[in-house]
Amino acid sequence: MSEEQKVFMRMAIELSKSGMESGKGGPFGCVIVKNGKVIGLGSNSVLETNDPTAHAEIVAIRDACKNLGHFQLEGCEVYTSCEPCPMCLGAIYWARPSKVFFANDKKDAANAGFDDDFIYKELDLPYAKRKIQFVQGMQESANKVFQEWILKENKTLY
Amino acid sequence: MSEEQKVFMRMAIELSKSGMESGKGGPFGCVIVKNGKVIGLGSNSVLETNDPTAHAEIVAIRDACKNLGHFQLEGCEVYTSCEPCPMCLGAIYWARPSKVFFANDKKDAANAGFDDDFIYKELDLPYAKRKIQFVQGMQESANKVFQEWILKENKTLY
Repeated sequence: MSEEQKVFMRMAIELSKSGMESGKGGPFGCVIVKNGKVIGLGSNSVLETNDPTAHAEIVAIRDACKNLGHFQLEGCEVYTSCEPCPMCLGAIYWARPSKVFFANDKKDAANAGFDDDFIYKELDLPYAKRKIQFVQGMQESANKVFQEWILKENKTLY
Repeated sequence: MSEEQKVFMRMAIELSKSGMESGKGGPFGCVIVKNGKVIGLGSNSVLETNDPTAHAEIVAIRDACKNLGHFQLEGCEVYTSCEPCPMCLGAIYWARPSKVFFANDKKDAANAGFDDDFIYKELDLPYAKRKIQFVQGMQESANKVFQEWILKENKTLY
């Protein structure tokens, strides 16, 4: 990591610490940068907002997209104090930044009591073996709406 | 699926259709139920809100948790018009409902032009082979904050 990149990662780590200390949530922080400028930031806010999706990366992605007025983060860099969990990794792929820097990794997260690794393992299991039961039904009805989407003109792809 | 379950799935499918038709986002809807009552709902709102994380399941989970005043969905059922993408699946695991019903599946989503399957595949790749570059750095600094979390007293686990 370059000196400039370290400055942004230091900010993300600061956010992980301040969020934890103020009781917002767990020790996670994230900063999103475009052309050398911070355009979004977030601390884990699960406890403060009662929102299980309020991980640092999700908060920062929502903040950056609001500031850009766009649902994509092309050309942006994500600095996160910990390797993203599957939810946040999925969010990163939907937002499509160009690069992700992380500090703590999955094993560090597991050692600190966070379930990321468990969720990564569940993703690879067939439905019958998962801890949460998944049941498929009414596919035919739902698929009619997909067919309408496929035929829809002038739609915005995201 | 029971008749009651079909009623809730029909609602989720209706939300997938109305959200698409009003231009909120893609053709996805979700309903969350506790003890036979709807406690949260959502349509994909990526385009309306410029928020790449505003998938139907995330919107519905945030709505349900707001209504319950809690960051967990214990004892709840999630009805989603399509098999969750990795982001939404992760969100579901963090929210911990008891059961998930889905209608369209991953293949249907791919046929309708949605990237879910691509993201599922990326999750399993080592960093060097991923489309988005992932770089680790400053682990030692970030880990000090994790150590503070581990030692923190009276913390709420989520």
